[in-house]
Formats: sequence, structure tokens, C-alpha cells
Amino acid sequence: MSEDRNQFSAGCAWIEGQYVPIAEARIPILDTGFARSDLTYDVAAVWKGRFFRLDDHLDRLLAGCDRIRIKPLWTKDEIRSIMTETVRLSGLTDAYVEVVITRGVPGPGERDPRLWTPRLYAYAIPYVWIVRPELQEKGTEVVVARNTRRIPPGSVDPTVKNFHWGDLVRGLFEAYDRDSWLAILPDADGLVTEGAGFNVFALVEGVLRTPERGILHGITRRTVIEIAQGSDIPLRVGDLRVGDLYRASEIFLTSTAGGVMPVARLDGEPVGDGRPGPVTTNIRKCYWDLHTDPRMSSPVQYLAPELTPPPKRAC
Amino acid sequence: MSEDRNQFSAGCAWIEGQYVPIAEARIPILDTGFARSDLTYDVAAVWKGRFFRLDDHLDRLLAGCDRIRIKPLWTKDEIRSIMTETVRLSGLTDAYVEVVITRGVPGPGERDPRLWTPRLYAYAIPYVWIVRPELQEKGTEVVVARNTRRIPPGSVDPTVKNFHWGDLVRGLFEAYDRDSWLAILPDADGLVTEGAGFNVFALVEGVLRTPERGILHGITRRTVIEIAQGSDIPLRVGDLRVGDLYRASEIFLTSTAGGVMPVARLDGEPVGDGRPGPVTTNIRKCYWDLHTDPRMSSPVQYLAPELTPPPKRAC
Repeated sequence: MSEDRNQFSAGCAWIEGQYVPIAEARIPILDTGFARSDLTYDVAAVWKGRFFRLDDHLDRLLAGCDRIRIKPLWTKDEIRSIMTETVRLSGLTDAYVEVVITRGVPGPGERDPRLWTPRLYAYAIPYVWIVRPELQEKGTEVVVARNTRRIPPGSVDPTVKNFHWGDLVRGLFEAYDRDSWLAILPDADGLVTEGAGFNVFALVEGVLRTPERGILHGITRRTVIEIAQGSDIPLRVGDLRVGDLYRASEIFLTSTAGGVMPVARLDGEPVGDGRPGPVTTNIRKCYWDLHTDPRMSSPVQYLAPELTPPPKRAC
Repeated sequence: MSEDRNQFSAGCAWIEGQYVPIAEARIPILDTGFARSDLTYDVAAVWKGRFFRLDDHLDRLLAGCDRIRIKPLWTKDEIRSIMTETVRLSGLTDAYVEVVITRGVPGPGERDPRLWTPRLYAYAIPYVWIVRPELQEKGTEVVVARNTRRIPPGSVDPTVKNFHWGDLVRGLFEAYDRDSWLAILPDADGLVTEGAGFNVFALVEGVLRTPERGILHGITRRTVIEIAQGSDIPLRVGDLRVGDLYRASEIFLTSTAGGVMPVARLDGEPVGDGRPGPVTTNIRKCYWDLHTDPRMSSPVQYLAPELTPPPKRAC
């Protein structure tokens, strides 16, 4: 049986109860998830056929709904089933699996968001790399944005994963203008926050540091914190000044979309000796090893009766 | 001919070259206009069959694209034609007409927003009232948010009309919790900014004041400024402290979706004598009168050959 037989091989979405090929997945233009970016979402990875920390992603998603006062119509188990089914139908063994819960679609003239019915959308697509693996081997470039500040928590709660990316995209364009392509955003107090889809770690005077406030509490970030806590790496979670980055011997970025991503150059200057350092390299290896650890990952059951298994490749 | 014959009577959208009923209007889930809220948009009103200041809305839209470095594929005239056609097909004579330009849909694995092709969506629906006309006669309630600050311009440029409404929606929930339903957001310096879809004016010691920084420069706001400049109302455009609101004799909100909306109560206490004041009432009348003024409005040509005119109603 040819792989072409699977209409979902480029990705599979769940839209209002129907599984559809990703290219056909659409949402109502009047959904306030679009028209007000009024939603929360989460992204879990499937790696080598196993979900990584799916329960933690689902807990964060539901906690986010609670914080912005969206009452989802789906239980944690139901959302897990939908996400799993998008992966199973796609046949993808390395996947980026997103679920979005929006405030819903107002009826004509309706102005009270408390009355709207939440909507859920989900999809699985091939795994997304913020920094491609081959570039991770030598480390990426990154700049600190000069003109853009991260949206502060007093405006939009960053612990509720959201699509308010105006500042993050603006940071990307700052990076392009400076012959780079990723940007770390400071807050208005000169503290490090995060970048477009990633958290930041820096090894400063032998201590591994990462911000706590004004950021998404990433699951990859949490995994790195746990790796550090289980080893002999000194760790400090809390305010990190932008200036601290310039004296760091190692810097790395973390994301479900790319894992632990070493930074080789900051603002065009080498970090440490300009190559991924030993702490980063060790954590990166541990992080990926955990993806097949049954304590942190669970297999996707591709072999459901409705579908043949993902086809074997010739090579 | 029955009105039911018009499939667009509830609203008409333009989606990728097709005119579709509003209920069927959908956008790709992978559009970064959704997934990153990376877009700008504008809303023009049609009132009594005439667009109000459509050119000014289009100029702001295109200036916004320029500021966030989206290069639209459509000229101002083309966008005007699309918007006009959505109105014409709907037959609506009082309409809310929105146009959205997004960064576009990345191909698989694409990470560079400079390479994506912008998308445009537009639709006309029945005119939207933030404050319904009957409530405007007596004036609405509003609160000043206590826990939520407007997203600062250093993060997201508010002069580029956008869907980053997380703070504005949070403000709405603050209002509901305080038995109100609209909120004005301060910035981190204690200055008045704006609310969910509206600008703010206050008459303080006989001077009409409105903020300039950290806000959308609304077309209704501009119209009110021009009305004040053309009359003998003293006007001051610039920083307005939250505290100034509590000593204002009149307050009103402005929006394309509702016009000039008198505020009767602030944080539960009456503004002035708790009824729309004379300055507000006069400006409100002038504002609506301008909607039929040929200098500021242009008729929609409903009688295109493809469509019969909007049906006459019996009453």
C-alpha cells in the first residue's frame, strides 16, 4: 500500500468533530480566537512514536483556560484522545501536535464573552524545528532586541500560552535587520524574558540560570530544570538581567519545537568559545534521551482497527 | 422578490477571491494571522447606504501594513472594491465592514516570515454597537481596570490596529466582576489609554481631553477632534491621567462600532449629573450628521447589474 493513500500524511486536524487534512483545516473568521486572539493553546511533541509529557501539556492547557475564564466543553481525556487521533491518522512518528481552545463565535450582535461556547481545534503536523538539528550541532545566532519589549504580565498573562506574538515577531524583524534570525526580548526593567516560541537559559559564573517571571513556563524549560536538579549543576531560577547574558559562558534556548538549542553567538559575538558548551551538550542529550523514557513519554497506538499502520519505508 | 433570496443578508465575506455567506467564512488554521495574531485590520462603517471616511480607514490599514512590514498584494482601490462588493452583495445599508491583512500561511517547516505571501479577508455584517443606541440616550457604565494594564507601545504598536485583545478582554472580565460591562485600561504610568474597541474623551475643567500615546488613533476619535477644532470647544490632545477621569464633568467613548457613546457612571459613581452632558450630546449629533455629508461619506452603489436592489420593506 502506497503512502499516498494517506490523505493525512502532511498533517491531520480535528475541526468541530471532523478529522480533515491539514491543508483543508479552517476556522470561522468570526471566532474570537482569531478576531480577539482570545484563546489558549498548547503544543506537545511526538518523538519516535511517543508523546512527551502529554499530561503536563494538558494540565497547562486546562489551567490556562481557568485563568482566562474559558470553560472548555472537553475533559482532559477527551482532549488527549483527539490529539492522539490526529497523530494516529497522520501516521507521523515525529510530530508537532497543537490544541487550541477559543472563547468561541459570538452570535449576531452578541457582546458578552461569558455567553459564548468555547471551540476546540487540534492538529498534528510534522515535527517543527525552531533551530534545525544540523545547526544545533554548531549552535545558533541570537540577538537581544533593542527596540522591542516583551508584553508585560500586567497586560497579558504569559503563563497562559497565547498567540499574542506581535512583540515576538517584531523581535524577529529586529534580528533580521541585524543579520541574525532569532531574538531574545527584555522586559521594561532590563530583565531577560523569552523569544518567539522559546525560553532562555544561561550559564553565568558556573550557575545555570533562567527567568521565572514574565514568561511562559515551558515544559522543555521544566524538563531542563529537573535535569539540572537531578545532577550537580548549580541552578538559579529567577530574575536574569540582560547584562548577565553577555558574561555567560553558555546560553541555550528551549522549546517543544526544537528541544535544547545551543546559542553560539549573541549579538554577533561568540558565547564562550563560540561552540555549544559541555553543560548545554549534556543537558541536550539527557533531554532527548527522556523522550523514550516511559516515565515521561507514552506510545501512540497507531494500529487502531480503522487504519492500516504507517507504511514501512524502503530504506 | 423575497429577502430570503439573498444568501448574504446576514453578512458577506470575501475569502481568497470568493464571496461567501458570513456563516461559511473560514480562514486556514495555519494562517499566522491566527497562529501568531500577525496581521493588521480595519473596520469601516456603512450608514444609511454610505461608507464613512473609507479612504481614511484604508490609509490607516496600509500604513499599518507598512509599519509591521507586510507587503499587501492589493492596491487601495482593489481593497475598496472588495469591501464595497461585500456590502453590495449583502444589501446591508447599516454595516460593519472589516478587512484583515495577515502575514500569510507558512509552507511546511518554513520559519522566515519575510517569505510568506500575505492574505486578505474582508466581510460586511450588520452594524455593530458597542453600546446600543437606546443605552446611549441615558449613558453607559464603565470602570477603570485595576489589575490590567494596556499592552505598551514598546511591545505592540497600538497605532497598527490589531487583534491583541488579551488585555482588553481581561478588562471586560474585571468590569463584569464589578457589575459593569466596559473597562478603560490605564498604562503602567497611570495614564488613560483605551478600552475594548474604543477611545476615551473626558471634559475636564471645560477642556475636552483625549490621550495621544499608547492607543489606536481611531477614525471616530479623529472626527471628534475635528468637530471640536471646528467649534469653540477647548481641546487638549495628550496625556490624560486616570485621576483626571474622576473629576471630569463629561466622559464619552468613541468607536466606529457605536459612534460617540456617553458615559453616565464611572466605577459606579455618576459622571457630572449622571446623564449625557451638553458637549457630548452636541458632538454625538454632529458625528452622526457627518455620515450623510458628501465630504466625509460616499454612497455604496447597490444597483450593480448582477444583483437586484435590496428589497423594500413593508414598513
